[in-house]
Amino acid sequence: MLRVLLTASLAAMSSAAFAADDTALREEALGIFEPLPKTAPELPGNKITPEKIELGKMLFFDPRLSASGVFSCYSCHNLATGGDDNLETSIGHGWQKGPRNSPTVFNSVFNIAQFWDGRAEDLKEQAKGPIQASVEMANTPDQVIATLNSMPGYVDGFGKAFPDDSDKVSFDNLAKAIEAFETTLNTPAPFDAFLEGDDDALTSDQKLGLALFMDKGCAACHSGVNVGGNGYYPFGLIEKPGAEILPEGDKGRFEVTQTVDDSYVFRASPLRNVALTAPYFHTGKVWNLKTAVQIMADSQLGEELTDTEADQIVAFLESLTGTPPAVTVPVLPSETGTTPRPDGNIR
Amino acid sequence: MLRVLLTASLAAMSSAAFAADDTALREEALGIFEPLPKTAPELPGNKITPEKIELGKMLFFDPRLSASGVFSCYSCHNLATGGDDNLETSIGHGWQKGPRNSPTVFNSVFNIAQFWDGRAEDLKEQAKGPIQASVEMANTPDQVIATLNSMPGYVDGFGKAFPDDSDKVSFDNLAKAIEAFETTLNTPAPFDAFLEGDDDALTSDQKLGLALFMDKGCAACHSGVNVGGNGYYPFGLIEKPGAEILPEGDKGRFEVTQTVDDSYVFRASPLRNVALTAPYFHTGKVWNLKTAVQIMADSQLGEELTDTEADQIVAFLESLTGTPPAVTVPVLPSETGTTPRPDGNIR
Repeated sequence: MLRVLLTASLAAMSSAAFAADDTALREEALGIFEPLPKTAPELPGNKITPEKIELGKMLFFDPRLSASGVFSCYSCHNLATGGDDNLETSIGHGWQKGPRNSPTVFNSVFNIAQFWDGRAEDLKEQAKGPIQASVEMANTPDQVIATLNSMPGYVDGFGKAFPDDSDKVSFDNLAKAIEAFETTLNTPAPFDAFLEGDDDALTSDQKLGLALFMDKGCAACHSGVNVGGNGYYPFGLIEKPGAEILPEGDKGRFEVTQTVDDSYVFRASPLRNVALTAPYFHTGKVWNLKTAVQIMADSQLGEELTDTEADQIVAFLESLTGTPPAVTVPVLPSETGTTPRPDGNIR
Repeated sequence: MLRVLLTASLAAMSSAAFAADDTALREEALGIFEPLPKTAPELPGNKITPEKIELGKMLFFDPRLSASGVFSCYSCHNLATGGDDNLETSIGHGWQKGPRNSPTVFNSVFNIAQFWDGRAEDLKEQAKGPIQASVEMANTPDQVIATLNSMPGYVDGFGKAFPDDSDKVSFDNLAKAIEAFETTLNTPAPFDAFLEGDDDALTSDQKLGLALFMDKGCAACHSGVNVGGNGYYPFGLIEKPGAEILPEGDKGRFEVTQTVDDSYVFRASPLRNVALTAPYFHTGKVWNLKTAVQIMADSQLGEELTDTEADQIVAFLESLTGTPPAVTVPVLPSETGTTPRPDGNIR
């Protein structure tokens, strides 16, 4: 209630009163969200080193991890376009379409688990999925390891990244290196600056949107460092959206846990950079962020937002658009006589 | 003849004599090749500015220039893998295969013309081709311009790059910006250091290979800044290679000039970074560089190289592997409500 009063009066107040409001808004926000840490977290079982990050970057950019030689991690997690591919669902091997919208790789280390249904515990487990998925990179671990072992530059890179391992060039180590690189892909945003004390980091519309985001209940699911990505919730809690947005055939987390309660349950989307990552939802059927916000309010909260409220929430979401780290395109080793040849055939 | 004598005696000589040999080798080489210029050349009708380069980099990396949203210039001219895609022929829209092997974008501004048959006079003409080719990016100029105009970040970028134009966001200007960026993609190599006076820049095998490359006649077609890329020659001058390598259906430059003399004529491949750009020839049917060298000697010169000679020429060609400029992945503008949606359908 305090929040609603503050919100309603924000626009008319003096700058001194604004500052007091900002402090209250920040305090409430800090109870729900966390600013992006300045350094990547430590990962259990995967000590991050510069050598591992460098190797991981090479692997992330290398289309030779796919059977066809066409797709790399970067293809669907494009660092130039918000860390995703801007498609409803990704196009992969043989022009096949993937089943769900590609999530952004940015800040993904801060998610509770990976994929829309959280079926991968962490980024190293996640990295193994698309490489093998028949509609994505369509490769096999054996073929990937043969490819890497055929290039001295990679054998050297794995040697430096995993000096203590007896089996250095392994699929597990590939996944660990990619995870190490991905922990660097974090994007501090104006919202972080606001949380850290800079009143001017958000516009007044963004502040009003933040207040609404908390008051209306959006923050019940979209909280924490990634403003989401930290829990599982049924899609259509109050009212199921249409079948195009939530098709019957995709039961979400049910397929992971085989628990009826997990039917149509998905990981709440992490909302950092959401303004860059249209189209929305696991089906990628909604292109407009305001529409997505309205669908969420309707289906999850039973709230019909006014046009102004929806605009203000979108303004807040735009404050989550961050600055990606400068990533220089790596120079990859060249193939040798023993490198498996690309094969674009569909099996 | 002098060269042959020098070559034969190189391995056994003292370092002082080596230096004298190096000087003679360099002098002969400088009559045929040119070191890579330190700055990109001026382009007629396209003044290079930092704003144009920056815009061109954005366009080069943007998959939204393709109808499907999957392919960018970078897809087939991958800066991480020698400026090409390491495929026989590129895979494009709808998983269709292109007709010829993708050439490297590196140092391409120094080629006499673009494409295997030289059908594009320069890089700005070239850039328009793949965007519209139905088996590549399958887009139309109108759709591309609508896409760019829908994103304020691009409208702003074109405004800065083409401040004096009345029609700033145009297909011509897109091509000019991409050309401007591509003029920066040059890769100085050990061979350049040798040409510029550093005797130690090449190994003795590479020097022997360079001498052979000139003496055997390879340099008759592969000369100039790009060690090729500067003239048109019939493939199979002395003896036609097999139909897999030189299929009857692709008559090369004949299709451009409609002149019988141009049947099976192609632009001599520019050989900078050739060790990174397998597979070889316009058909991409040969994966091994030594094999490619032997085929060339046989079909173009009627020379059967010894195993050692072929190895030494390969060693020389490896000295053409250069250092690409550091290219940071750009941050591209996000779509808006008016951005045309990706469409992967085959028409």
